Amino acid sequence: MDLADSVLQGERLALARLITQVENQTTAGRRALDRLFPHTGKAHLVGVTGSPGAGKSSLVNKLALAFRHPATGEPPRRVAIVAVDPSSPFTGGAVLGDRVRMRDLAGDPGIFIRSMASRGALGGLSASTAAVVQVLDAAGFDLVLIETVGAGQSEVDIARLAHTTIVVEAPGMGDDIQAIKAGILEIADILVVNKADKTGVEHTERALRAMLELARPEKMPYTGSQHSPQHEELDENEWWMPPVLRVIATEGAGIREVAQAIRDHGEFLRHTGLWVQRDRERLESELQTLIRSVLMYRWRRGVSEDLYQDVLTRLVERSLSPYQAVDELVGMPVE
Amino acid sequence: MDLADSVLQGERLALARLITQVENQTTAGRRALDRLFPHTGKAHLVGVTGSPGAGKSSLVNKLALAFRHPATGEPPRRVAIVAVDPSSPFTGGAVLGDRVRMRDLAGDPGIFIRSMASRGALGGLSASTAAVVQVLDAAGFDLVLIETVGAGQSEVDIARLAHTTIVVEAPGMGDDIQAIKAGILEIADILVVNKADKTGVEHTERALRAMLELARPEKMPYTGSQHSPQHEELDENEWWMPPVLRVIATEGAGIREVAQAIRDHGEFLRHTGLWVQRDRERLESELQTLIRSVLMYRWRRGVSEDLYQDVLTRLVERSLSPYQAVDELVGMPVE
Repeated sequence: MDLADSVLQGERLALARLITQVENQTTAGRRALDRLFPHTGKAHLVGVTGSPGAGKSSLVNKLALAFRHPATGEPPRRVAIVAVDPSSPFTGGAVLGDRVRMRDLAGDPGIFIRSMASRGALGGLSASTAAVVQVLDAAGFDLVLIETVGAGQSEVDIARLAHTTIVVEAPGMGDDIQAIKAGILEIADILVVNKADKTGVEHTERALRAMLELARPEKMPYTGSQHSPQHEELDENEWWMPPVLRVIATEGAGIREVAQAIRDHGEFLRHTGLWVQRDRERLESELQTLIRSVLMYRWRRGVSEDLYQDVLTRLVERSLSPYQAVDELVGMPVE
Repeated sequence: MDLADSVLQGERLALARLITQVENQTTAGRRALDRLFPHTGKAHLVGVTGSPGAGKSSLVNKLALAFRHPATGEPPRRVAIVAVDPSSPFTGGAVLGDRVRMRDLAGDPGIFIRSMASRGALGGLSASTAAVVQVLDAAGFDLVLIETVGAGQSEVDIARLAHTTIVVEAPGMGDDIQAIKAGILEIADILVVNKADKTGVEHTERALRAMLELARPEKMPYTGSQHSPQHEELDENEWWMPPVLRVIATEGAGIREVAQAIRDHGEFLRHTGLWVQRDRERLESELQTLIRSVLMYRWRRGVSEDLYQDVLTRLVERSLSPYQAVDELVGMPVE
């Protein structure tokens, strides 16, 4: 029996091994992905991003526990955590995070944690993460929490992998104009103010709400759980108004409300058809990333090293401009 | 007379206009870049990155003033500031920064400030920034300060544009393990602890020094200004040990020391030959970005919309895997 079959049957060791193969983009990893892909599309993918030091890891840990041990009326969910660190291109800094987590979550077969250190040859970290998330989806995890460090473009790209994006801030980080960027708020479905016992929490929350209104001026409020969804009655102009939720992640305060907001948002996406739309956008973005890498790989293989180095040298000598260099190496397509 | 000539003759309005053309990658913009490129390679490019809220803009403003009005013995320098915001893919949020700056710097013809909002069609924000920096270099600015928001992968990419990279932190942001990433420290040539009047400054400084040692274990100390450089005597194994400098940017305290460290690092790069090496790496990275974009553009033009949409639909239906989809659209090059 191959790795993919073992993964479909829920074997944990096979899962860990296969993810390594997928990360390293081995031939076996790719074949397994082809085999597993028809089984994907079921998991709820939740991206968690925000300023460094806002307490994303604690929040993610506590959310995982909340979905494992939900309040009455909710079934326990199988939860995978993928911790992605795009700000560390040189060192595999995410490993430490795993160790810290182990204390809370180790030993529960319904939880699986993976750090992304490797970025693969084709498509970089974003493509590697997409592939790993697909494996976890196929392996039957109901919820995949994708945690990123920082709040730059790479985090926005990775957040695009998710159905639901949570942006986490904390007092003292998010309260100046430059810290909370409208860009990151435009991708936020749920806002969390962590460390809500610290001074300045009202200020941070007010700033977030103000920026949110700025970022989504045209969108109508939508109150997730009070809404009784009936597909045919839905107005296309109905919008999700991102809730702003206070949390003290280290103490577990406010976590159930965030978990409920995630469930509500999942329902909202399904009932409005946005689930399918985001799925399509995500897969298209992944496809484009892979194609870009393949084209580059193929081009580089077709150009002689001598020509490449010669053009580069003339560029450094300023006897060719960058556009002229591109012209010599591939020919410019745009008039 | 065309825009490029006017720029070479120091006309400010022509410069502003040309930068817009270059950002928008118009044909005229490209021609002008070809014309200007032989005049580049002289400016000292300084990247400034660090956590949101660390006070990068204040530092950059005060550095610009310090280079305009230096202590005795130094000539005043012409300074350009490029403010880049990769975390804001949707809105041109950097404009506000310009206005705030105007108060200090407006009216000085030796200072030019530009926000990067547009990312151009080919190569995104990193390529646009590279092109704008080239225009400023050709226009005769001695120093180009490239300020980025945040500390993610995009910031690392943009910092690669620079000869000298400054990483700015502040007490209360940089003092937990996750906040200061080894990755960003590996690209730092100068570390600045801003807001040095706040509590926790010793802690932040200690953490930075510890992370620095972790990030560059093998590198030998190099004391910039005490060193008397003689090119032929230099040991290839000589290294720049990034100084950690305390600053209160809003009050101007410590700014002259940072300016001196920038000058020292410039000397170090020139004497060790690293200036040329970084120039080559920067131009190669720019070349690769442009080639990637051209290949993608050309491929997309050659694929029928029907085929593309059909493959995408089968991907969404899970009847094709991502790798199989790439195979149908371009053929996979890797066995």
